[in-house]
Amino acid sequence: MKNLLSMNDLHPEEINRILQRAEEFEHNATPNLTRTFTVANLFFEPSTRTKMSFEMAERKLGLHVLPFEASTSSTQKGETLYDTVKTLESIGVDAVIIRHEEDGYYHQLSSGIDLGIINGGDGSGQHPTQSLLDLYTIKQEFGKFDSLEVAIVGDIAHSRVAKSNAQALTKLGANVTFLCPKEWQGDIQAESSWDQILPKADVIMLLRVQHERHESAKGFSKNEYHEQYGLTIERYKQLKPAAIIMHPAPVNRDVEIASELVESEKSRIFKQMHNGVFIRMAILESVLKERF
Amino acid sequence: MKNLLSMNDLHPEEINRILQRAEEFEHNATPNLTRTFTVANLFFEPSTRTKMSFEMAERKLGLHVLPFEASTSSTQKGETLYDTVKTLESIGVDAVIIRHEEDGYYHQLSSGIDLGIINGGDGSGQHPTQSLLDLYTIKQEFGKFDSLEVAIVGDIAHSRVAKSNAQALTKLGANVTFLCPKEWQGDIQAESSWDQILPKADVIMLLRVQHERHESAKGFSKNEYHEQYGLTIERYKQLKPAAIIMHPAPVNRDVEIASELVESEKSRIFKQMHNGVFIRMAILESVLKERF
Amino acid sequence: MKNLLSMNDLHPEEINRILQRAEEFEHNATPNLTRTFTVANLFFEPSTRTKMSFEMAERKLGLHVLPFEASTSSTQKGETLYDTVKTLESIGVDAVIIRHEEDGYYHQLSSGIDLGIINGGDGSGQHPTQSLLDLYTIKQEFGKFDSLEVAIVGDIAHSRVAKSNAQALTKLGANVTFLCPKEWQGDIQAESSWDQILPKADVIMLLRVQHERHESAKGFSKNEYHEQYGLTIERYKQLKPAAIIMHPAPVNRDVEIASELVESEKSRIFKQMHNGVFIRMAILESVLKERF
Repeated sequence: MKNLLSMNDLHPEEINRILQRAEEFEHNATPNLTRTFTVANLFFEPSTRTKMSFEMAERKLGLHVLPFEASTSSTQKGETLYDTVKTLESIGVDAVIIRHEEDGYYHQLSSGIDLGIINGGDGSGQHPTQSLLDLYTIKQEFGKFDSLEVAIVGDIAHSRVAKSNAQALTKLGANVTFLCPKEWQGDIQAESSWDQILPKADVIMLLRVQHERHESAKGFSKNEYHEQYGLTIERYKQLKPAAIIMHPAPVNRDVEIASELVESEKSRIFKQMHNGVFIRMAILESVLKERF
Repeated sequence: MKNLLSMNDLHPEEINRILQRAEEFEHNATPNLTRTFTVANLFFEPSTRTKMSFEMAERKLGLHVLPFEASTSSTQKGETLYDTVKTLESIGVDAVIIRHEEDGYYHQLSSGIDLGIINGGDGSGQHPTQSLLDLYTIKQEFGKFDSLEVAIVGDIAHSRVAKSNAQALTKLGANVTFLCPKEWQGDIQAESSWDQILPKADVIMLLRVQHERHESAKGFSKNEYHEQYGLTIERYKQLKPAAIIMHPAPVNRDVEIASELVESEKSRIFKQMHNGVFIRMAILESVLKERF
Repeated sequence: MKNLLSMNDLHPEEINRILQRAEEFEHNATPNLTRTFTVANLFFEPSTRTKMSFEMAERKLGLHVLPFEASTSSTQKGETLYDTVKTLESIGVDAVIIRHEEDGYYHQLSSGIDLGIINGGDGSGQHPTQSLLDLYTIKQEFGKFDSLEVAIVGDIAHSRVAKSNAQALTKLGANVTFLCPKEWQGDIQAESSWDQILPKADVIMLLRVQHERHESAKGFSKNEYHEQYGLTIERYKQLKPAAIIMHPAPVNRDVEIASELVESEKSRIFKQMHNGVFIRMAILESVLKERF
């Protein structure tokens, strides 16, 4: 693929091809690249996981990685994102990974730019590499998506992954239900309590309360959120034996999930991060193979 | 050469040798270096183009690049530039690229320091790698400098490249004229309007309005500057057929140049950036070859 | 060794083994590592020397180095240090170097984390790689520690290296005396003037006045500190012929030491930095060899 901007761009077969290739990389497959490519990671918002995961994937693929710091770049002199990316194309960068606070920032790069673009998260929009690593983690666990019961819990409206995960999982055959405060529900139909979720869910996908995107917690204290929408130890005990817990992290401990559960038996939170490296290797390889 | 601090250090033959070597690198010449050298890019001012261009050149040469961030370095604890550079020498760095807000910062490094220094821009002083990539871009286009008509337009007084480009071009045989607001003219004799420039110029070198260096635009609004000193579509149409437009970037779109013209047929703005990588490879190689 | 957190973890034989290996690296020994390891440098406080020295050591060992910037990491979103380090473990990082403002930050990483940890300085606690490079510099000069007279001068109470150096040197057979303002003495017995120090010291270890850790200079002006506790030219002349001067840097010129003496004949200040690279190679190799 030329770019990866949104999960909407991917057909189920393409998703499966990426998951397949990630699995090969997890089993030490050799990258299939014909020359040394150069990439740059343009992160205009804070990130540890996504950025470091790409950095690791890039090194495992043997790429050259040019260091880009938004805070010391010419965007500080008012340069547009288009001109910044066009600059990188001009000096020979083959692909960029971009995280940006603006929803759909990539539309301004849709013509005139000749390098691969991988979306590392746009505002409240998409975060396709996170979605793909979530799918990989589920597939790894259950071997299939068909008829799986997936519950997505938290701030659906502002989440970069909730909507795209829901769409992809539905396309792939899973049944997706939601649980969230009414204020954060957006236009999605949601359950009103954990009671409908706990007895049937195979996968609990917790979403991050994004304090940095909310002015206030909309009337919730951390404790209140945890009691109503958090995964407490009490609720954990009611999960099906084979159920798993996921969270894109960083976790707000004792808000979305009780701190003791972050590394519990059913938690795949750090496994997701582990898997992210192989997903990103697969995506980078796929995008770079389009460059000659 | 041991260092590259100012265009004044370079004789025309040296300039031509660098341009020649850049051309070889553009045609995939193998670097002529006997061991793995280590460099560091010390950018005390924001930069995308120059920094990323050096980073790319360094990787193409197979160098080790130590990441240096001014904002998290001991300069925050009051360490002098001399002591910072001496530290890098002590740990085995072979050459540094420095961009610094102080005119002639390199004078304080003129003795006691035993590593190569490449000036990546000093205050309102020099920016020799930019000058050389400008010269390379002109030579590439016209095959010569002799009798070329070059017009430099904009804030001559505060420009790092205007004066050094003018000197170098004159030494190489070109005729250089200037156009700029009287307030930014400095001690240079300038034309008063585009009328004298448009019919004869082979090369239009636009300079950046450096908002970040001016408290106000000295009485100009962006629109007024554009109308009086900007390259408008109207003026573009009056250029000679083979004329080219250059700009060191980042461009203030619709100030120095109409936004539609940034990627127009006569524009070499992104070509300049492309060329910068090869110029910097040539300079780095030349400086590092002096180190054993 | 699995980690290097504190000098207290090291027996004299281990110290000597590290110094021995550093010497081998100084004479171009080949690293003894069986695969390409990946490390990350987590510096939550400003640093030039320690960070760049590790970066150089890592490249000389052929490691992959993932760039981590505290200011743009998820610690900005409130992520704990534990979760940040666990994230790096999850994506496959083999070892981290951490500098953090909190004394003993590493206690929170003592269980649950499966990667090597090297302490690059914790608050007013320890700075073991600095201590080891100091020891290496002394051994290089005198060939032994036994019966050496070492004077440590300055802010003993807040120094990361004073206490650990004193303990290590004492264990290794040296005699350590202190000189410092009463206010910064802590629980250590100190001399009250240079007069007891100058005639007998083989090694003068000056400590940095850490303006950034003190609200005020506790009643001292820079001049007053220099006159009472600084190494002046006058005092320098009274040192034994073979005595050497050390300082962990960055130096406050004309405070701890007269500016003219920083690169004087007896000064080993930049030699210490040079030596730091080999010490860090030895430590990194030792920690990474524990990872399979």
